[in-house]
Amino acid sequence: MMPHESVHTVQSYEQELEQLRSLVNKMGGLVERQVAQAITAVVEHDEDAALDAPEMDPQVDELERETEALVIRLLALRAPMAGDLREVVVALKISGDLERIGDCAASIARRAMRNELLSCPISLTGLHSMGRLVQENLRRTLDAMDQRDPELARIVWHSDTAVDELYVSLFRELVTYMMEDPRNIGPCAHLLFIAKNLERIGDHATNISERVYYAVTGNILPIIRPRGKTFD
Amino acid sequence: MMPHESVHTVQSYEQELEQLRSLVNKMGGLVERQVAQAITAVVEHDEDAALDAPEMDPQVDELERETEALVIRLLALRAPMAGDLREVVVALKISGDLERIGDCAASIARRAMRNELLSCPISLTGLHSMGRLVQENLRRTLDAMDQRDPELARIVWHSDTAVDELYVSLFRELVTYMMEDPRNIGPCAHLLFIAKNLERIGDHATNISERVYYAVTGNILPIIRPRGKTFD
Repeated sequence: MMPHESVHTVQSYEQELEQLRSLVNKMGGLVERQVAQAITAVVEHDEDAALDAPEMDPQVDELERETEALVIRLLALRAPMAGDLREVVVALKISGDLERIGDCAASIARRAMRNELLSCPISLTGLHSMGRLVQENLRRTLDAMDQRDPELARIVWHSDTAVDELYVSLFRELVTYMMEDPRNIGPCAHLLFIAKNLERIGDHATNISERVYYAVTGNILPIIRPRGKTFD
Repeated sequence: MMPHESVHTVQSYEQELEQLRSLVNKMGGLVERQVAQAITAVVEHDEDAALDAPEMDPQVDELERETEALVIRLLALRAPMAGDLREVVVALKISGDLERIGDCAASIARRAMRNELLSCPISLTGLHSMGRLVQENLRRTLDAMDQRDPELARIVWHSDTAVDELYVSLFRELVTYMMEDPRNIGPCAHLLFIAKNLERIGDHATNISERVYYAVTGNILPIIRPRGKTFD
């Protein structure tokens, strides 16, 4: 083999790994925007934002498929080892979590414009706080992934507890509103699911943190994550 | 290389693939039982069943980790190609869906024993029908996986539409009960989430069917799956 050829192969392998990182980061950026738009749609009754989040879904799905195809190509042709192999396998898992986050965001956005919610007298303060916290955790998770920072990943992994706690208190609050006035039942049923979707976005962010930690360190975080009390 | 050694290597590779199949099948059997127990817990107020489903969760998580470890070992040491490579990568994805199905089942079972539900006068017929259909789809998905049958996988993939439709009608029914009597609000809020979890189990079964189809044929089912109308 010519030295030139060898260098070329090495470069091209690095380039493919870089392409994989860039695909997953692009997917992360896209679902981050979906989540932001979904929360804006609910909290500000913003119709454009509500349409935006579900519209991005096919793009996210397509990026997941591209990631899968690239992972299979990398595994077949490059046979990555050790840390690279972990990174490639983890990219596959993370793309799955990102796709689910996108689904949750689209689901929130689609509910946001329902008539019951538009005319709803319920305060959205609790939901807004929960939304901000979930966005913050997601952003830090994506930073940990981009910077391959296991310490940041571990910190975000721990901070999902606060999301769980906000969810439980929101659940109680919404049930109280429903009991006070039957006209609140329709909108609150949808708000319950919006809150649940936010909580699930937090869970997926936690999964991603776990995977980043594993990809970078080769170690597994303890199976039992500290959790807030939840209703599931 | 001695011929003996070569045969040994081939056998051992086949054995590892077989071990991977058996791990994923074992995981499938376990979550299938979790789902059955969760539905029994809700419909028959069966406390033993309610305790059973969440208790299986750590076993399912452990099997997911074993699957991941074996996938990484297979990729690192065996460099599987073509159909084998697809099967190995798909096993990783399927184990993720199975783990989530287990989570949904555990979540249903934990809600089943809440006081609000035990004293609840609401008819559970609709939920029972939905539960049976979801169980049936899951069983057929696992059969398609075990038998590597793409045609069966495609059929199950289509049949999730009926689950979505049952979910929507159940959602409407439960909101009506809540409006009729505020004492129904607490139990019905939990029943809404139980129904949603059943619907998600159906979705994960659909994901698994898609992956089985891809692993066996190398082809991808169309991105847009026929769906029933849902509220998300």
